[in-house]
Amino acid sequence: MINRRESKQINVGNVKIGGGAPISIQSMTNTDTRDIEATNAQIQALYEAGCEIVSCAVVDIEAAKAFRQITEASSIPVIADIHFDHKLAIEAIESGAHAIRINPGNIGSADKVKAVVEAAKANGCSIRVGVNAGSLEKDLLKKHGVCAESLVMSAESHIRQIEALGFYDMKVSLKASSVPLTFQAYRMFAEKSDYPLHIGVTEAGTFFAGSVKSSAGIGALLLSGIGDTFRVSLTGDPAEEIRVAWQLLNALEIRRRGPEIISCPTCGRTEIALVKLAEEVERRAASLTSTISIAVMGCPVNGPGEAREADYGIAGGKGNGLIFKKGEIIKKVSEEKIIDELFGILVDDGIN
Amino acid sequence: MINRRESKQINVGNVKIGGGAPISIQSMTNTDTRDIEATNAQIQALYEAGCEIVSCAVVDIEAAKAFRQITEASSIPVIADIHFDHKLAIEAIESGAHAIRINPGNIGSADKVKAVVEAAKANGCSIRVGVNAGSLEKDLLKKHGVCAESLVMSAESHIRQIEALGFYDMKVSLKASSVPLTFQAYRMFAEKSDYPLHIGVTEAGTFFAGSVKSSAGIGALLLSGIGDTFRVSLTGDPAEEIRVAWQLLNALEIRRRGPEIISCPTCGRTEIALVKLAEEVERRAASLTSTISIAVMGCPVNGPGEAREADYGIAGGKGNGLIFKKGEIIKKVSEEKIIDELFGILVDDGIN
Repeated sequence: MINRRESKQINVGNVKIGGGAPISIQSMTNTDTRDIEATNAQIQALYEAGCEIVSCAVVDIEAAKAFRQITEASSIPVIADIHFDHKLAIEAIESGAHAIRINPGNIGSADKVKAVVEAAKANGCSIRVGVNAGSLEKDLLKKHGVCAESLVMSAESHIRQIEALGFYDMKVSLKASSVPLTFQAYRMFAEKSDYPLHIGVTEAGTFFAGSVKSSAGIGALLLSGIGDTFRVSLTGDPAEEIRVAWQLLNALEIRRRGPEIISCPTCGRTEIALVKLAEEVERRAASLTSTISIAVMGCPVNGPGEAREADYGIAGGKGNGLIFKKGEIIKKVSEEKIIDELFGILVDDGIN
Repeated sequence: MINRRESKQINVGNVKIGGGAPISIQSMTNTDTRDIEATNAQIQALYEAGCEIVSCAVVDIEAAKAFRQITEASSIPVIADIHFDHKLAIEAIESGAHAIRINPGNIGSADKVKAVVEAAKANGCSIRVGVNAGSLEKDLLKKHGVCAESLVMSAESHIRQIEALGFYDMKVSLKASSVPLTFQAYRMFAEKSDYPLHIGVTEAGTFFAGSVKSSAGIGALLLSGIGDTFRVSLTGDPAEEIRVAWQLLNALEIRRRGPEIISCPTCGRTEIALVKLAEEVERRAASLTSTISIAVMGCPVNGPGEAREADYGIAGGKGNGLIFKKGEIIKKVSEEKIIDELFGILVDDGIN
């Protein structure tokens, strides 16, 4: 239903970005990258949660060298997130980083950019030109201030600089903590360029505030057909970013992972039990990757009928609950046991 | 930054909708409307949470008559949500409903619509033409199936029917549980009509899933300039709908209510304390209506500098925390006491 913007395709390791490839989900570790064991463990947890590409901050040369062991252990491509020091970019590339992110605002002189691009070219490493509203070049800030035009101009001038070196394996991000600014900047850039876009809203906040902010900003862009890969930024465990990201792709009917939980609108008497039931089903279903649908209905009379299109469902009420499968009642159990019974049936049916 | 679609203005009680009026937040009670005491209490709680218009389901004539006492007690306009029975609409209007919502798919014959419209006209009551993908007219379903065109055609034909009776105080909704379908239907309708729009996604799900779904769908429409009033639909306490709604308006920089919490991106060592601190500040600040900003920073060295634009802030680390105001450190306290101290200072400063 969404007409996607046409973009060229690049690779980040074995993941294709743009050119019709599935919209991929990214996150970023918040471990100390030099602590290889902790970083590898967090990447593994992110992978299991459904993360497809991960970035790690490169704060010094030791962190850059750690990319050797991190990329070897990782099940997904690893991007080196670079600020300020082009030498860290080169070391990370030579240590196996699948891509690097550089910020036009702080990577430095043309010579330094050239050295980085040559290393990337020699090692099959792609580059994210990662513009951020918080760190725009001083001349742009002076002339135009923080606005969508500045973000776009920063990206464009950096792209031209890299293209002049014969390098084209780039994706672009233009992030701000303001949702309208982010939305406007990506829309403006998307009309002028066919480089694939990494979308996201920076410093989005806590799980609640950040989910709302990222869902609105990223959701609006994806519904407009813009975005080839994205990160939901949250203050907290990065695995939560993946949970929100998949929920968003599911809501937009772009990609599915794991069950969809359908719960009926509440009505007076059954409300409290229903909310708890629905949230418990959602929590327990979070570990499943099968794309089944599960309906949680408050009303035992109309429940199976209303949810007739769901693969599985439960309908609770008056102490007894019904379990149904494709709209047919298959079991009647006490309300306390209904969730255990449902998940037992899923196991029996080989759903995981 | 957002160019809003121009729409005509109507009134729902004393709240103006469309024509440049502030985008208003709605919710719906899930009490039994006939239980007047419970319904009034829930409306009061919704009002205190920041709800500006509330709907109540009208299931029978007793519920319709209850509107007399409900509208008298309510601090905000009350809409009667009608399905199937036009007599309930008329009774609710005559009992003081500030607006009614009727569904073109199930309100019945032209005669019935005429009786409802005449009652609305006589009582200064406005009408929401509330199309829902789940209850489209049979002829539309047969010809076109469930699609954006069907939703738009259903609304248009019902609007024409009501306009032919000389009535124009209408707003329109075209809801579906599918986000892309909802987005497409509103965009299509917005291009063809200047009636104000009530936007939302139906049956959005639990707090988590529903927040993501509504933020994406409603957020995308609002960023496109579409929408004059909206409801976030969640399975659960309707006051949570209001919390998400305000968070969304805040994220889109459309309207503000209550503090904005800014938390720094996590880094290894301070992460866990920071997330807890930020969430605790968010929880305690939820009862405030002042539009201050509060920064929660992990790093006591750079915290005040990084958050220099926040009204208030705390920076935790190594057992001690700093409290700052407009970027200046005003107090150093132990980390356990920092939140109590911060909220004590807010009270002293008359922030509520």
